[in-house]
Amino acid sequence: MKIGVLGTGSVGQTIATKLLSVGNEVMLGSRTANNEKALDWAGKNERRKTGTFEQAAAFGDVVFNCTSGAGTLEALHMAKEANLAGKVLVDLSNPLDYSKGRPPTLLVSNTDSLGEQIQRAFPKSKVVKTLNTMWNGIMVEPRMLAEAHVNFLCGNDAAAKKTVESILRSFGWRDEELVDLGDITAARGTEAWLLLWVRIYGATQNGAFNLKLVSKPA
Amino acid sequence: MKIGVLGTGSVGQTIATKLLSVGNEVMLGSRTANNEKALDWAGKNERRKTGTFEQAAAFGDVVFNCTSGAGTLEALHMAKEANLAGKVLVDLSNPLDYSKGRPPTLLVSNTDSLGEQIQRAFPKSKVVKTLNTMWNGIMVEPRMLAEAHVNFLCGNDAAAKKTVESILRSFGWRDEELVDLGDITAARGTEAWLLLWVRIYGATQNGAFNLKLVSKPA
Repeated sequence: MKIGVLGTGSVGQTIATKLLSVGNEVMLGSRTANNEKALDWAGKNERRKTGTFEQAAAFGDVVFNCTSGAGTLEALHMAKEANLAGKVLVDLSNPLDYSKGRPPTLLVSNTDSLGEQIQRAFPKSKVVKTLNTMWNGIMVEPRMLAEAHVNFLCGNDAAAKKTVESILRSFGWRDEELVDLGDITAARGTEAWLLLWVRIYGATQNGAFNLKLVSKPA
Repeated sequence: MKIGVLGTGSVGQTIATKLLSVGNEVMLGSRTANNEKALDWAGKNERRKTGTFEQAAAFGDVVFNCTSGAGTLEALHMAKEANLAGKVLVDLSNPLDYSKGRPPTLLVSNTDSLGEQIQRAFPKSKVVKTLNTMWNGIMVEPRMLAEAHVNFLCGNDAAAKKTVESILRSFGWRDEELVDLGDITAARGTEAWLLLWVRIYGATQNGAFNLKLVSKPA
């Protein structure tokens, strides 16, 4: 599959590297064509394509948004609506606001979410929010944890969610670990989790954790 | 221990019954002295004391706030500051707003929390937020779930948290399941979890679950 990955931070690089390793063609997109982090990532490996947000979005049949939440809408506008139209847009961003210090707060929450803002701004794209509830190392290597755990998906298009589930399985996620929360408004829930995540991280100083849902014995 | 329980809904009744069963003296408090739900709960059992918010707060050396979030501050003002001063005030409430339909949103979130509002309004009380992240059946019978899971505490007074941990152990909670998130501002995290909780509940139609934190193998 041809996949565009927007964002050259640790999330974007980690996702792009994993997507390549499981057999996809990948272009890592950034604000400028000669982004230093993107070029460092690519090195002399010809399979590691880089380009602008616009080029990476045009390249992908599926596009991963791995930009930081505060800049996501601007980055997607730079990628251009026409390059995202009709495509699955996998949204990993969180609207974290570090401007008032740590732990961060959210730029949008409770009655709206960044996932919904993206879907409203790009109505021809099929936004699927996923993987935003954990540290990026776990996203691409879920089996590093001691037990089964959970990754949520939400979005308005059922077929788009199936496409994303297939990619997640290629990362090592198990069917029973993928929890479909329904339409994109559920992004209010998975983004709000960050407010608890940062407190758990603050108390334990361990970011390499994820949540598991425990029920009564079967 | 003498404990006042404020709120006659399912949370208040469940907590009051459990506190009695593990050997405490309990008074269940409500808005009016002849609250029907409180009288139903008490029946002809003399150990099941009932009274107003004010009477229950005066009765307890520790006070549990089990009122619904939208009415919590008013209920605590009815209980009177003098009856709460110097005491551990265990806050189980969530600021859920059902006025716009389901799933609910939060009346306060992100940069503030109901736990903090209570602590600011009653600065002489030692507010400890806990148990607000799960269905009330699990609060008092944590061993009903198939595995170990997690209950968070937060508050500004370390000794008050120790008192609450001791009560929680009497409910069946294990030391390793109790996660101290720090001061009362962490209530922003545990209250925000409700925004994800309601989505998980909506997707699974199962409220008898709780979260567990999974890390790398030791």
